[in-house]
Amino acid sequence: MCELLGMNCNVPTDINFSFAGFRQRGGRTGPHRDGWGIAFYEGRGARLFHDVMPSVASEIARFVEQYPIKSMNVIAHIRRRTRSRVCVENTHPFQRELWGRTWVFAHNGYVSGIKRKPLRFYAPIGTTDSEHAFCYILDAVRRRFHEPPSPAKLHRLIESLAGEIAAYGRFNFLMCDARHLYAYSTNKLCWLQRRAPFARAALVDADLEVDFSRHTTPGDKVVVVATRPLTNNEAWHPCRPGELCVFGNGKPIRIGSSDV
Amino acid sequence: MCELLGMNCNVPTDINFSFAGFRQRGGRTGPHRDGWGIAFYEGRGARLFHDVMPSVASEIARFVEQYPIKSMNVIAHIRRRTRSRVCVENTHPFQRELWGRTWVFAHNGYVSGIKRKPLRFYAPIGTTDSEHAFCYILDAVRRRFHEPPSPAKLHRLIESLAGEIAAYGRFNFLMCDARHLYAYSTNKLCWLQRRAPFARAALVDADLEVDFSRHTTPGDKVVVVATRPLTNNEAWHPCRPGELCVFGNGKPIRIGSSDV
Repeated sequence: MCELLGMNCNVPTDINFSFAGFRQRGGRTGPHRDGWGIAFYEGRGARLFHDVMPSVASEIARFVEQYPIKSMNVIAHIRRRTRSRVCVENTHPFQRELWGRTWVFAHNGYVSGIKRKPLRFYAPIGTTDSEHAFCYILDAVRRRFHEPPSPAKLHRLIESLAGEIAAYGRFNFLMCDARHLYAYSTNKLCWLQRRAPFARAALVDADLEVDFSRHTTPGDKVVVVATRPLTNNEAWHPCRPGELCVFGNGKPIRIGSSDV
Repeated sequence: MCELLGMNCNVPTDINFSFAGFRQRGGRTGPHRDGWGIAFYEGRGARLFHDVMPSVASEIARFVEQYPIKSMNVIAHIRRRTRSRVCVENTHPFQRELWGRTWVFAHNGYVSGIKRKPLRFYAPIGTTDSEHAFCYILDAVRRRFHEPPSPAKLHRLIESLAGEIAAYGRFNFLMCDARHLYAYSTNKLCWLQRRAPFARAALVDADLEVDFSRHTTPGDKVVVVATRPLTNNEAWHPCRPGELCVFGNGKPIRIGSSDV
């Protein structure tokens, strides 16, 4: 289908190492050749890069891999299309504005039939069921809360909406509201946290190692979320199906249906 | 203040030549050093690139200048800030979704006091008066038309809203709704059309010439809009203050308050 990559940190961090491995799955070590995209948050805004080329062959992906953009929240996606055609408007991540913040969403799976759900405030630009599901979530959040509610209330609503949509198929997604990174899985998603003492890590998909102790300070905390582990010598935790994981400031703040 | 660059074509065309000159005004031949951005439409979606670096020094701008992205509608902006700080969320062009289409907007000028106008559907992500003005336009269009109206009706409404906002200061803007390129000026904006027979053109801001007859086919039509002429040997027409110019398929379809 597709693969997802996300990052949440307590200090602006570049994602070049993880992206170098992830990008390979878009045509070399994986079959996700139908375009790719990445969103880098800065404050309440975000910068997105999209391309319909396979990430392994994309000049824009090559640029993004080499040019360090530091961010506290990143969401990336490589696409293997099911039905909708390959074009910019069908390329994840998608973005919308709610409460004066940029929301970004990327999906792995399928939710056939979701397009029968009516929408009010947000309309899809492309033809994917993924973008319709994103619009449905934002519609519901907006109708329920005119202003940002407490995190716990928001998390419960998003988990409930995710469960409702997941009944339509497979719904693994990453979403960000410029504060928290949300990860939801029905069958495939995992995460890890990097913190002091930092160690070496080696990519699964490319012949690349990094010694994080040389690029970090002791207080740094970084969470990485991915469809499949990106490194072969670190402890990746599977996300439990049907439970919304929320990450903020480089640590889990909600795991297993309760705020921690 | 800032400078604007727009392009509208009847076939997907790259903007590398014009952007090569325009980019120089962001720090070398012009003082607009406070970030830049560009939007390339593809279908109903768009790809945007933003950077807070001066366009003349930006690695992303260098990439965009060299990598040909073909598009029928392009809007670019180089920024010289007045009040709001330099950050991604204050960097034009801004984008929102309406009627399942991406709308993009960039502004040169100032509209002090516009922020007192209340907004309903769209909220600014950054702190510029420009983004507030964009949200105000989209709010009004959305309230008036639940679905896309005839072009003539839409053009009249946009011109009327632009006039209302222009009373707050100086309001030169480019906007696109994935179909038409809108250009509105209170004091500074000009445009030209390139069509067969194509000739040579030389940039004002860089030592670069191009022979368009070598890169075009006889049916190609391209409109370029800019704050100041980008070339020194072509006929640039000034936009008349207070009149909405609309370009579609590489030609003017509304000039001087009436559809042509």
